[in-house]
Amino acid sequence: MKKILIQLDTDPHPSSFDAITAYDSQVDVVLGFAEVSPENLDGIVQGAIFPRGPDGLANTAFWVGGSKVRDGEAVFEAAQKLFFGPFKPSIMLDSDGSNTTAAAAVALVRRAVKLKDNGAAVIGVGPVGLRTAELLRREGTEVTMLTFPPDTMKGSHRRASGIPVAEEAGFKVVEPESSDALDAALAGHVAVFAAGPAGTQILRRSGWAQEGVRVVVDYSAAEPVGVEGVDRTDDLEEEDDVLKLGALAVGAPKMKVQKRCVQRMFEEKGTVMNLEGIYDVALEVL
Amino acid sequence: MKKILIQLDTDPHPSSFDAITAYDSQVDVVLGFAEVSPENLDGIVQGAIFPRGPDGLANTAFWVGGSKVRDGEAVFEAAQKLFFGPFKPSIMLDSDGSNTTAAAAVALVRRAVKLKDNGAAVIGVGPVGLRTAELLRREGTEVTMLTFPPDTMKGSHRRASGIPVAEEAGFKVVEPESSDALDAALAGHVAVFAAGPAGTQILRRSGWAQEGVRVVVDYSAAEPVGVEGVDRTDDLEEEDDVLKLGALAVGAPKMKVQKRCVQRMFEEKGTVMNLEGIYDVALEVL
Amino acid sequence: MKKILIQLDTDPHPSSFDAITAYDSQVDVVLGFAEVSPENLDGIVQGAIFPRGPDGLANTAFWVGGSKVRDGEAVFEAAQKLFFGPFKPSIMLDSDGSNTTAAAAVALVRRAVKLKDNGAAVIGVGPVGLRTAELLRREGTEVTMLTFPPDTMKGSHRRASGIPVAEEAGFKVVEPESSDALDAALAGHVAVFAAGPAGTQILRRSGWAQEGVRVVVDYSAAEPVGVEGVDRTDDLEEEDDVLKLGALAVGAPKMKVQKRCVQRMFEEKGTVMNLEGIYDVALEVL
Repeated sequence: MKKILIQLDTDPHPSSFDAITAYDSQVDVVLGFAEVSPENLDGIVQGAIFPRGPDGLANTAFWVGGSKVRDGEAVFEAAQKLFFGPFKPSIMLDSDGSNTTAAAAVALVRRAVKLKDNGAAVIGVGPVGLRTAELLRREGTEVTMLTFPPDTMKGSHRRASGIPVAEEAGFKVVEPESSDALDAALAGHVAVFAAGPAGTQILRRSGWAQEGVRVVVDYSAAEPVGVEGVDRTDDLEEEDDVLKLGALAVGAPKMKVQKRCVQRMFEEKGTVMNLEGIYDVALEVL
Repeated sequence: MKKILIQLDTDPHPSSFDAITAYDSQVDVVLGFAEVSPENLDGIVQGAIFPRGPDGLANTAFWVGGSKVRDGEAVFEAAQKLFFGPFKPSIMLDSDGSNTTAAAAVALVRRAVKLKDNGAAVIGVGPVGLRTAELLRREGTEVTMLTFPPDTMKGSHRRASGIPVAEEAGFKVVEPESSDALDAALAGHVAVFAAGPAGTQILRRSGWAQEGVRVVVDYSAAEPVGVEGVDRTDDLEEEDDVLKLGALAVGAPKMKVQKRCVQRMFEEKGTVMNLEGIYDVALEVL
Repeated sequence: MKKILIQLDTDPHPSSFDAITAYDSQVDVVLGFAEVSPENLDGIVQGAIFPRGPDGLANTAFWVGGSKVRDGEAVFEAAQKLFFGPFKPSIMLDSDGSNTTAAAAVALVRRAVKLKDNGAAVIGVGPVGLRTAELLRREGTEVTMLTFPPDTMKGSHRRASGIPVAEEAGFKVVEPESSDALDAALAGHVAVFAAGPAGTQILRRSGWAQEGVRVVVDYSAAEPVGVEGVDRTDDLEEEDDVLKLGALAVGAPKMKVQKRCVQRMFEEKGTVMNLEGIYDVALEVL
């Protein structure tokens, strides 16, 4: 029986990235659906869970994706509400790759420094930043979230809209008024994660090359990258006692995690690959 | 040469059910097209019949589907008008699964009771009801079609719109004014089929547990099911001399019929799987 | 690793013709995207070039298609601008099959008559006509392009809009005022190509059965065909010293060229199958 992956994608075109990754994870067939929302997914989900019966359903899984993470979360919740009894297939949420990206980065950092009972800082309250903070908290880290310093931002990129979401999730959000204030706020945090917008430097060298910081992570691959002095390919290179992890050095392990997550869904029916599940996989394979 | 199935689907998302069923029927590739109508199908159909030439076309077939049965019929007719000479591929119509569902149910009932020269009743003049009536007529049964009794319906579910279609197809349509009137109208019919809307009980126990009725079929799987006293999984269970056939007990044979129909299309080029063709398959495999 | 072809199609439904041809060219998976434009292709293209890394990208290729040739050209250019460094996959442009059709026809004619330093005429300044003219020029032929004579056209089919494009490409465009004038203008041209609209005869027998003409090609397969006295299946049949090439006799070699082009894209990463590249393949396989 063929392994079929149903792409529930919230964008006008289903993600080519997700489809190719699935085919590279031993999926036989990807059925891509575009513009999926909680309002229109009943037919797709029910049509996918019934034809093979409860046992055959082990070979059918769902992947919620697309560029809009909040929309993806809504689809992920709504789809699971249609599952019942033995009709519970595996399902994964990885809109914009944010879950696998955060999981890979935190798992890599965890191997390099002691997170438990130490402080960590996450700059950026968007989806990747928030997921990073959630995983750090799970590791027993005291997390500080910070918005981007206004003097680094062109236009309206401050993403203030993520602040209530982060606060609702229980995080303290600091809003530094300048890059100097950001530098000062980062002192003493063992790990610093920069989750900024593409093509914008949000953190200066002086922000991470200071007392107490042991690792700095940059999620942004587009030039100019997000952190001054961190190269995209830096793979925990040490400089001034700080380990530097660049975006491309996160990308390869992220692909490994993502593929393993897809495989896992077909190994055990009913697997729920949310942020927690994906992080468990990252801890195992990285 | 790969077996390619072209899904001509009238809905905004091509049916995941149909695609999965096709892959489970030894089809190699399903190409799903959404929002297909008689106005926009020329390019899809002509693009599919030409590239492999007349002989290769034995490995390309069409499946018309989607939730709207009337729209599917129009697409089914329009597509066939584009076939010509040796460019005549196989094609199947099964919008909403209505043809395979009705074919499976009537074929199962036919094995259990004598239909020829007996009376049968079909409650519901929607697509599944009408197809059921057509197959019963083919078996030499005297068919009465009935609308839903108003006291069972919440809202506007009477589906009166199907009445002219049923009458045009040559059926007598009875409109019982209450569940009592429905019960009375069913007396003496050897088989009673309940083709009602999902989640609505349209027939009471007193309607089928009466003189002359030998089998009762419920097409509705969602709770509450369509017929009081018939369980979804009843597979011709006998009670008070009546054989009860529930929706899930129709569903499994329906899948078997559907898969065999798909296979048949690739065994013989030019196969037309309309209601008649599908019923022939049902008689053979059930 | 599976060979994945990304269909960048400008139409509301991705071409079934292109998808089937790809599957018949040893492609494992076709991912079809509809309504692709320079404005919305970034996500599709970037999502496709990154997940497999530079080496794996040898197994991912792009095919730009759809019925609108100008739109396809814009997508073809825009997609290539997103390629960079080692992230340069293979890509092909064949909107409406115009490149492979012209390439096949000119390659067949080239084997039959001497093109270099002779005159050739192309009737029709649409995409297939223009591509034919470009390939003839590459062969050292002196090309005359001609519009359709008004007395053959019903309605507004003169396609005058193509004239500026043809002139910008460096071609002399003659606008004959009648079929008599067209006949006269064709005298002395060793090859005459009729690239007219479907179902319209644009050239009379007297136009090609005259001194100096050695081959006549008709691209139009729908009845009535484009050239009086040329049958769709004529495969360089000789009549009055003129070799006649009908549309279906172009179609089969065209399929051969198209399939070989797809295969070539997966043999060498970074292959650019524009008109030139496709013609090179045609010269090799025909």
